[in-house]
Amino acid sequence: MSPFAPQNSSSPESAGNEITRKLAHYIVSAQSADLSAPVRKEAARTLLNWVGCTVGGSRHETVGVAVSALAPFSGPAQASILGRHERFDIMNAALINGISSHVLDYDDTHTRNIVHPAGPVISAILALSEHRPVSGRDFVTALVVGVDVECRIGNAVYPKHYDVGWHITGTAGVFGAAAASGRLLGLSEQQMLWAIGLAATQPVGLQEMFGSMTKSFHPGRAAQNGLTAAILASKGFTSSEQSLEAKYGWVNAVSTAHDYSYITNRLGQAFEISNNTYKPFACGVVMHPTIDGCMQLRNEHKLTADAIDHIELKVHPLVVQLTSKKSPQTGLEGKFSIYHAASVAIVEGAGGVDQFSDRAVRDRAVASLRDRVTTAVDSSLHEDQVRIVVTMKNGSHHEKFIEHAVGSLEHPMSDKDLETKFAGLATGVLSPDRQRKLMNVCWNVESLPQASAIASAAVA
Amino acid sequence: MSPFAPQNSSSPESAGNEITRKLAHYIVSAQSADLSAPVRKEAARTLLNWVGCTVGGSRHETVGVAVSALAPFSGPAQASILGRHERFDIMNAALINGISSHVLDYDDTHTRNIVHPAGPVISAILALSEHRPVSGRDFVTALVVGVDVECRIGNAVYPKHYDVGWHITGTAGVFGAAAASGRLLGLSEQQMLWAIGLAATQPVGLQEMFGSMTKSFHPGRAAQNGLTAAILASKGFTSSEQSLEAKYGWVNAVSTAHDYSYITNRLGQAFEISNNTYKPFACGVVMHPTIDGCMQLRNEHKLTADAIDHIELKVHPLVVQLTSKKSPQTGLEGKFSIYHAASVAIVEGAGGVDQFSDRAVRDRAVASLRDRVTTAVDSSLHEDQVRIVVTMKNGSHHEKFIEHAVGSLEHPMSDKDLETKFAGLATGVLSPDRQRKLMNVCWNVESLPQASAIASAAVA
Repeated sequence: MSPFAPQNSSSPESAGNEITRKLAHYIVSAQSADLSAPVRKEAARTLLNWVGCTVGGSRHETVGVAVSALAPFSGPAQASILGRHERFDIMNAALINGISSHVLDYDDTHTRNIVHPAGPVISAILALSEHRPVSGRDFVTALVVGVDVECRIGNAVYPKHYDVGWHITGTAGVFGAAAASGRLLGLSEQQMLWAIGLAATQPVGLQEMFGSMTKSFHPGRAAQNGLTAAILASKGFTSSEQSLEAKYGWVNAVSTAHDYSYITNRLGQAFEISNNTYKPFACGVVMHPTIDGCMQLRNEHKLTADAIDHIELKVHPLVVQLTSKKSPQTGLEGKFSIYHAASVAIVEGAGGVDQFSDRAVRDRAVASLRDRVTTAVDSSLHEDQVRIVVTMKNGSHHEKFIEHAVGSLEHPMSDKDLETKFAGLATGVLSPDRQRKLMNVCWNVESLPQASAIASAAVA
Repeated sequence: MSPFAPQNSSSPESAGNEITRKLAHYIVSAQSADLSAPVRKEAARTLLNWVGCTVGGSRHETVGVAVSALAPFSGPAQASILGRHERFDIMNAALINGISSHVLDYDDTHTRNIVHPAGPVISAILALSEHRPVSGRDFVTALVVGVDVECRIGNAVYPKHYDVGWHITGTAGVFGAAAASGRLLGLSEQQMLWAIGLAATQPVGLQEMFGSMTKSFHPGRAAQNGLTAAILASKGFTSSEQSLEAKYGWVNAVSTAHDYSYITNRLGQAFEISNNTYKPFACGVVMHPTIDGCMQLRNEHKLTADAIDHIELKVHPLVVQLTSKKSPQTGLEGKFSIYHAASVAIVEGAGGVDQFSDRAVRDRAVASLRDRVTTAVDSSLHEDQVRIVVTMKNGSHHEKFIEHAVGSLEHPMSDKDLETKFAGLATGVLSPDRQRKLMNVCWNVESLPQASAIASAAVA
């Protein structure tokens, strides 16, 4: 049975009975022994990819601004800012690491609902693990459960939640951070209900922020809010006990349609981390098929920008909704321009951090070809597909249909691919020796006596 | 022309053109000299009422839990927790004071949209004023502008925003906190646009939380989020420049209908603080007409609970939506029970803090009469009206129609009423001498060399 198959609509779950309570019960009672080897392996891959992205993002201007703005108000030096030397209280550390992890738009992506799962969850629990010791084994269980909770809730409201205008990584992510943090704090089921309520009441993130520094603020603030929710609940701060399904609760407030079976089906048996993927390109995941296809066309036909008259892209509607910036002026804006993505993939044959920098979006050749890229919505396509037609100045055509982009669940990044990506991100921040050591810490997370070793190995 | 009269629907404002920019321009360019004497007087009344509620709420269990939970993570001792001895960083102080100000449900209320204006705004700027000196005059201007911004935005989405499930004090309040804080930080128009964007992306509060500690978390977190937004923007953290009106912006995400003319009409000429009111009863404002009417009936007819068969209330739909807890078990739940409100007003002849305590909701006589209270929705009534029919065991009836409750804009609390309420709240926390001194500081706020004197006078 597919974990995505909705239950019969007359079931209690469809009516929303006790959804929050079932979820709270699962969060506090899941056991490490319930996790299969592939699930635990995926947790290590998720961790390694998150650490690489966070270290790599730590030098971005966005992070520098946030650190300098918030440093005067930070509490005790409890937790590390990855890739840097500052230490903040765990709330502010969760925020900053969450920003770093997402600022390059290079992190992980849940295949069904486009949540970037690691940012809210790991940013919260890694900071917490530096304040309250936890074994690597318990850390992994919290990570898996946190990702499971945010992705199940995301599934339950996707795609209508997106259509309302929300950025699901911040809005569903806060639940993942609360669940994972709450587990490590040893919350009772009652306290976990309150933590979910406190998370529900502080979702973060509008899609309108895409292309500005505020986009990466979303997973960071979601991590901080979820951690705050768990800590308040641990001290007895009360909240609703049906914050998801209540008439004036989270689900109805943030979406026009929902299916609670995504939350309850095979709860504790199937784990959504199994549907996590890792980006090969440093931009919004809906642009990846286009980059993949354009790079393939470039290589197969030795394309040069000068010889191209125009490029037509047929894409899923969400691609246009999310990435329609025609004339990006900054690297951050370029990450939300399908026009830039196609152009830079042809001109530079890559889609890494450098292709979504201020330099790349201002490059003359890239900008010129960008103006000759058009999009058409084709609702018969899914998000992972694209149909590309390149029309040459000599009148000839080249076509490419991408069924599943590189990095998708069907064409996943191998462990070696992840290590290569990691090294690319960490270079300039950590020495090759320290990169190797940090990767080993991630791969062997379950054997760590203290999970805080991850943070210690990742500071500048 | 009424500030509430919508503009013609074909106007640029109705289409949402540049709404965020117009608001940002107003926020940074408003002058103290633009404020009339009555507006400035209302600011002092708003301040005095907020200080009284915050000092009075500071000993509530909710505040104690939040303080003990968050103290280990607080930064430098930059700002006061009113009514207590702890000092936190300004972010955490804004959060805690915002909780204290709202936990008794005794604060101020905007007459049109039910925003409680002072909580998010003053909690933010009083904390900020302890970190960055500001004159009482500039403090008042920021207060008026902050209240204006949150109430105008609230008006633009009311009432559909409420129907979606949001608690408007947290969701609109964050804009008030960002605007007022941004003014005191001297933000440019560009930075204020970003601050509004950062506020828009972190609204707080679902109605489902009513009756739990999380309700008062809303204005506190809104204060903290708005202050954070302004501080990040002041350092150059970028955001959307059309966060309100964009297709995937705040207004469309949180409401199914809107009227932008409420934001732009007479901007800088009419100030929404003129529509602020102060609660005579310590509970949700929609229950005030019922308490007023029941107290009047009790006094006019010497009613005793034993002689009453049942009580029927005809009310506006929102009363049932917000306050339908049939059998409250805690004081916090009692604040959202129209049944408890009617009963305790008859039994005890009052509606103060003590009538919405755990003691009162568990009182046998109150609980017994509560079970004999029924409600019926009458859409022809407005929120401030109620029709009460008390049926006696002897078969006789007593009726009362309340057109406007005591404390409403039509029957406002006098300055003396506010002082009496203040003294009732501060007793047990501050000596009578310190109460008098603190009230004088509030009345004379505009002459203070430093607004931080308000906080200094209000600590335990």
